[in-house]
Amino acid sequence: MKEGLAGSPGASELLVQVDELLGDDLVRVEQIFAEELKSWHPFVNDVLEHMTRFRGKRLRPILLLLSAKACGAITNDHFVLAAVVEMIHTATLVHDDVLDDAEIRRHVATINSRWNNETSVLLGDYLFTHAFHLASSLESTLACRLIGRSTNIVCEGELSQIHQRGNHELTEAEYLEIIEGKTAELCALCCQLGAHFADSGEQTSQSLREYGRCLGIAFQIADDLLDVLGSEDQTGKSLGSDLQKEKLTLPLIRLLGQSGPAQSAEIRRLLADPNDNTRSRLKKFFELSDAVEYSFARANEFALAARQQLGNLPDSISKRLLEDLTEFATRRNW
Amino acid sequence: MKEGLAGSPGASELLVQVDELLGDDLVRVEQIFAEELKSWHPFVNDVLEHMTRFRGKRLRPILLLLSAKACGAITNDHFVLAAVVEMIHTATLVHDDVLDDAEIRRHVATINSRWNNETSVLLGDYLFTHAFHLASSLESTLACRLIGRSTNIVCEGELSQIHQRGNHELTEAEYLEIIEGKTAELCALCCQLGAHFADSGEQTSQSLREYGRCLGIAFQIADDLLDVLGSEDQTGKSLGSDLQKEKLTLPLIRLLGQSGPAQSAEIRRLLADPNDNTRSRLKKFFELSDAVEYSFARANEFALAARQQLGNLPDSISKRLLEDLTEFATRRNW
Repeated sequence: MKEGLAGSPGASELLVQVDELLGDDLVRVEQIFAEELKSWHPFVNDVLEHMTRFRGKRLRPILLLLSAKACGAITNDHFVLAAVVEMIHTATLVHDDVLDDAEIRRHVATINSRWNNETSVLLGDYLFTHAFHLASSLESTLACRLIGRSTNIVCEGELSQIHQRGNHELTEAEYLEIIEGKTAELCALCCQLGAHFADSGEQTSQSLREYGRCLGIAFQIADDLLDVLGSEDQTGKSLGSDLQKEKLTLPLIRLLGQSGPAQSAEIRRLLADPNDNTRSRLKKFFELSDAVEYSFARANEFALAARQQLGNLPDSISKRLLEDLTEFATRRNW
Repeated sequence: MKEGLAGSPGASELLVQVDELLGDDLVRVEQIFAEELKSWHPFVNDVLEHMTRFRGKRLRPILLLLSAKACGAITNDHFVLAAVVEMIHTATLVHDDVLDDAEIRRHVATINSRWNNETSVLLGDYLFTHAFHLASSLESTLACRLIGRSTNIVCEGELSQIHQRGNHELTEAEYLEIIEGKTAELCALCCQLGAHFADSGEQTSQSLREYGRCLGIAFQIADDLLDVLGSEDQTGKSLGSDLQKEKLTLPLIRLLGQSGPAQSAEIRRLLADPNDNTRSRLKKFFELSDAVEYSFARANEFALAARQQLGNLPDSISKRLLEDLTEFATRRNW
């Protein structure tokens, strides 16, 4: 999932509010992240330092800390856990760049293009194992256990997506299963950890987990819409990476489902041989169908379901920010 | 490190003795390994099942269980930990095959050649994260902490090796630092975990750790000798992968150190442009130098140092087998 939150004015305003509330806490998380990722080896340090340049909006630490604050108070364990989930997320990004042969991430050369694939694979492994090393500095094994389980589900989701690449018969249910794993699970984990380590009861932790899961699905559907349609400044310029990799996403699944045999055959031909014109040639089909509106509505349903999970929390700024996040999740132009 | 223990008659005899002592225990470890690595997803299961076909001699579980038995008794925690270290080792093998573009492992197609690099990278991640998930099922966080630290050191060793590729000025000290990380650390961890979870005191756990570290170094030097010289049935047929990847190992470091300027320049030219004749062309230089004998002697020193760490353990079959392992470590034809 790309974290393009900053694109819309509403979203940047939200990020400013998050920063006002969590600024010092996020700095503390950054410090732990940086302190932990120091190596005695100069080359490893060079790679780690380069990596910090393409770090993103810290959505996962934000989810974890907001959940903690909405359920009680932020403790030292939360800082550690927020650094852990950011490390795991960074590991998946570094490995994604190998899988996608990506050359640029956030305007900076990827590890694989600056050095080589070997360095990326090993750096990802280093980050994964370091995340667990850090998680095991907490008193109980619960965090390790939950993080281990979730990262497994993430890997299964990604493996499943690789396997389904080029499958034009993918169903909506199968698509949802994939994004639940590859995206929603880590968001769910963040919110659950935030709540649990703020001494919430099991029920609240599970509600927050469900909030994160639904929010993650909404985010991913919106992201997949953007990939197929292109954002305003991207349309016609570059091919979405899902199209490139023949990953079927919700808008395409709906489009194919609504098409008659002749149109469906034409779309499949387009998808099977992606090139720079694919997106613009798909556009006319999207304009004649409800696929975009349908996908947008589905994303909204998940965003609403996420919001409803917050019902029993006491009012607070953190709660309101968690609510606001569900609105920005489905804005197409972020 | 390749685990070719079975090659020599002495080594197979040792493995029979290990199997007599640990047969049922190793079966239990296999069961945990297999039970843990089941996925609800058919594709993930297919990949996991394929992976089991190139599993090796289980050297790491053997080290862990022998250490446990030599220090006290094997407990349920040991079975779990032995499955964990085997999972981590398998993860590194799966990623090594991507790094090396390997097509065959133990006469079976690698994951990257049977499927693709993406599947290999994600399967490795799945194994790493699953290992930590399993380790966190134990009561204390200590195992996670030790395993996290060691896997980090392994990754640093491998990153360092990648970085030093093609560096013909690598020193013996730098070489030892690399193999301490990439190979010896996991062996050290196995022996330490075996001892610690058999309720050994700190001193014994550290002695066993040091045993594993020295044994791992001895193994790796012997393995690197084999890569440069070729085993009897390999010589002249295929290029060693270290030569192919321009990884300087102890025999070459010594050979370069003993050579005059003209000879050294010729060797460097050979190393810089590896092909199928490189090994046979290096042979004449090895025959005129002490590089092979020197490397063999260094491996023997580490094997002896490993053996000496066992001095304070009470006599037992396990202790004797740990001692015997130090002898087989440096046999060139295993």
